[in-house]
Amino acid sequence: MTLPINTDRLLRELHHLATITDCPPNTDTSLPEPTQAVTRIVFTPRDLEARAWLTSLAEAAGFTVRVDPVGNTFIRWEGSEPSLPAVGTGSHIDAIPHSGMYDGTVGVLGGLEALRALKESGFQPKRSLELLLLTSEEPTRFGIGCLGSRLLGGVLDPHTADAFPDRIAESDPSAPKPDIALTLHDVRTAAGFTGSLADVKLAADHYHAWVELHIEQGPLLERDGIALGIVTAISAPAGYRFLVEGFGGHAGALLMPDRRDALCAAAELILSIERHTLAANAAARAAGHSGVDSVATVGKLEIHPGNVNAVPSRVLVNLDIRDTDVNRRNGTMDAVRADIRELEQRRGVKVTEEFVNADAPAHSSESIVATLEAVCEAEGASYRKMVSRAYHDSTFIAQIAPIAMLFIPCRNGVSHRPDEYSTPEAIELGTRVLALTLARLANE
Amino acid sequence: MTLPINTDRLLRELHHLATITDCPPNTDTSLPEPTQAVTRIVFTPRDLEARAWLTSLAEAAGFTVRVDPVGNTFIRWEGSEPSLPAVGTGSHIDAIPHSGMYDGTVGVLGGLEALRALKESGFQPKRSLELLLLTSEEPTRFGIGCLGSRLLGGVLDPHTADAFPDRIAESDPSAPKPDIALTLHDVRTAAGFTGSLADVKLAADHYHAWVELHIEQGPLLERDGIALGIVTAISAPAGYRFLVEGFGGHAGALLMPDRRDALCAAAELILSIERHTLAANAAARAAGHSGVDSVATVGKLEIHPGNVNAVPSRVLVNLDIRDTDVNRRNGTMDAVRADIRELEQRRGVKVTEEFVNADAPAHSSESIVATLEAVCEAEGASYRKMVSRAYHDSTFIAQIAPIAMLFIPCRNGVSHRPDEYSTPEAIELGTRVLALTLARLANE
Repeated sequence: MTLPINTDRLLRELHHLATITDCPPNTDTSLPEPTQAVTRIVFTPRDLEARAWLTSLAEAAGFTVRVDPVGNTFIRWEGSEPSLPAVGTGSHIDAIPHSGMYDGTVGVLGGLEALRALKESGFQPKRSLELLLLTSEEPTRFGIGCLGSRLLGGVLDPHTADAFPDRIAESDPSAPKPDIALTLHDVRTAAGFTGSLADVKLAADHYHAWVELHIEQGPLLERDGIALGIVTAISAPAGYRFLVEGFGGHAGALLMPDRRDALCAAAELILSIERHTLAANAAARAAGHSGVDSVATVGKLEIHPGNVNAVPSRVLVNLDIRDTDVNRRNGTMDAVRADIRELEQRRGVKVTEEFVNADAPAHSSESIVATLEAVCEAEGASYRKMVSRAYHDSTFIAQIAPIAMLFIPCRNGVSHRPDEYSTPEAIELGTRVLALTLARLANE
Repeated sequence: MTLPINTDRLLRELHHLATITDCPPNTDTSLPEPTQAVTRIVFTPRDLEARAWLTSLAEAAGFTVRVDPVGNTFIRWEGSEPSLPAVGTGSHIDAIPHSGMYDGTVGVLGGLEALRALKESGFQPKRSLELLLLTSEEPTRFGIGCLGSRLLGGVLDPHTADAFPDRIAESDPSAPKPDIALTLHDVRTAAGFTGSLADVKLAADHYHAWVELHIEQGPLLERDGIALGIVTAISAPAGYRFLVEGFGGHAGALLMPDRRDALCAAAELILSIERHTLAANAAARAAGHSGVDSVATVGKLEIHPGNVNAVPSRVLVNLDIRDTDVNRRNGTMDAVRADIRELEQRRGVKVTEEFVNADAPAHSSESIVATLEAVCEAEGASYRKMVSRAYHDSTFIAQIAPIAMLFIPCRNGVSHRPDEYSTPEAIELGTRVLALTLARLANE
């Protein structure tokens, strides 16, 4: 079948969504394409504004909209056999501070365009098609990524989740702290999302298949001139927090021999994490593997008291560590822990490890991968089967449905930055292959 | 002369001032004395509330109050020969986030009590006595410490100062940035302090003498059981900022070989600063000196974008470095700079050094030191002549007046923390010796 994609409409919508941001409009026109810095944290006024606008687009296209208690939004095109398990697609619209305009949004607006293009072409699905807007893929506000999809997949206890503290103001040590600690329950209720989180989990037969369209967030497709990536597995991410406690005081008066500087200890911890991750890659390379599959990042520190003239007494180190091999990831963590024991002794500090989350890798359905390959071949689109080292909602949808993902290249592999960019051609091709794949799956 | 100090009144006032804080009331009653966490940033509602309350106390005691364009507040007791240069005392009431209730405030409320005790005892000064509340001794809001006293001493260009950006929200990377960058001029004007900063500088003959009462903020007096410290010199502080720029991206997708992680580079810089400062002390010790006079602190980092799942692209490292020997301080900086050049090459990052401020050490007036010694001896109070390694407003008052400082012990040498504490006995003795010293100086 031929399928015209209304790329102008899709790009106009992507650019409109990017204007719903807590960042000022970009004025740097030196980039090859205008891009926009986006900050859109879940359940803020900007996030709610974006959700309302997307809902109006979906309703204008004739789809029905349902919202669950955590704000996951189901945009449904009823099939001719609505009792059959549906075919799903979707992604997220929340964006970490000062990030880009394509991460997540290409899967949501591209998914919407895929459904509209199919409908406008006269296609009639047998299975219902559902486009999901998933809540809080980013961990900014509640400290854990993929909040909505974890609850959909049943891999997060609803009571635990509802008690997650609101961390939106946490990284500002100079801001007066709110008197009352807000929870996810408080914040979602205030945003209008009510009901029990226990009702979010989907039945294991809800979806026949799930496909998420996303930018690669890595350099491989662009570097090798490949049009599309078909994801066969999503690597196993884990989150930890290390609380480093020392002894603080006045920067002038606390003498060096009396210091137990928590930030100096944290600096050693950061370098230990980097060193052992590089060593894990080197060992993998020596064993004949690619040697790039281990990544570890300290992206955020919370320093107490956090003033230029105070010796830090306490530092919270946030670690994000991912690997395609869970055992290798655990080996890296054990080596870091050995360094921590040594630096605690030497520096007289105390380091407490807090486990945030560790997830199993997700593997794609061979059948959906085969369908994606068949569509790529029919469309004459080059593709590569690849592993996703970034973390996606599909990781958790995989708990209740057969999944796969479709990647499009992004410039220089850049993501989570204002200059994140994918070409109109890549977005159009990804959307067309997604639409044609959804159509095949809907008629299975 | 005998001089009764109303210690109950003074302590009541210190505790009342501590309640004017952006921190919640302390509930930890396990400490030997109740203390209070204080956040009182210059020109916030709490700071203005504290200023209004202090003004009312001063007026109730019969003193006149004048405020200059930067908010320095002059509480004056007119002498019998008001045309003679006055005798000054004072300190600050602003407090860095989550700090203590004695830093600065003992010099302001102790100074007020000294004046009231002299007045109530029937003393009549020949020279006028002035108590100063100095604006923004802490660098929290405008990035530079001793703002008010620098302007009084004429060591800060008024136009430069008025353009200082308001950094109050800077340390929160997730907060939406204000559309308009506020300056000191905007903030002081909104707080009601108007007029030209060029009018703040005092004439070189304004003060005959200046004495500041302060907690030691170090462990030496308490450790050695000495009642008072008479400061003979204030060490030379310097502030620098290092902007470390690398290449950021998504924590999952940006592979380790492609990273130029700005936070890993900053971690190396932090450890380089610590290593060279320890080496400077070791060299001084080997040469027969005390070997504790160099201190360097990185108390604050600004990490961009500052999210758990983003590789840091940019980190601003704030350095506070102090020494009694300017050449030794400069030597430490040069060694750090050599490490920076090496790590720039190795890590592919760029480090830009920004000079914030570097001040000359201040030396006390031998004559005022001798008066302080004479009063201590008359009162039977043990004392030690010592160097201040912390930074004080007196550093800059020294530019236009003969100065000295009087230290009282503080528990465990702790300052800039909620458990900062000095005993009622120490506060009373410090206040009495201050009052008797001011009385002698006023009649010179």
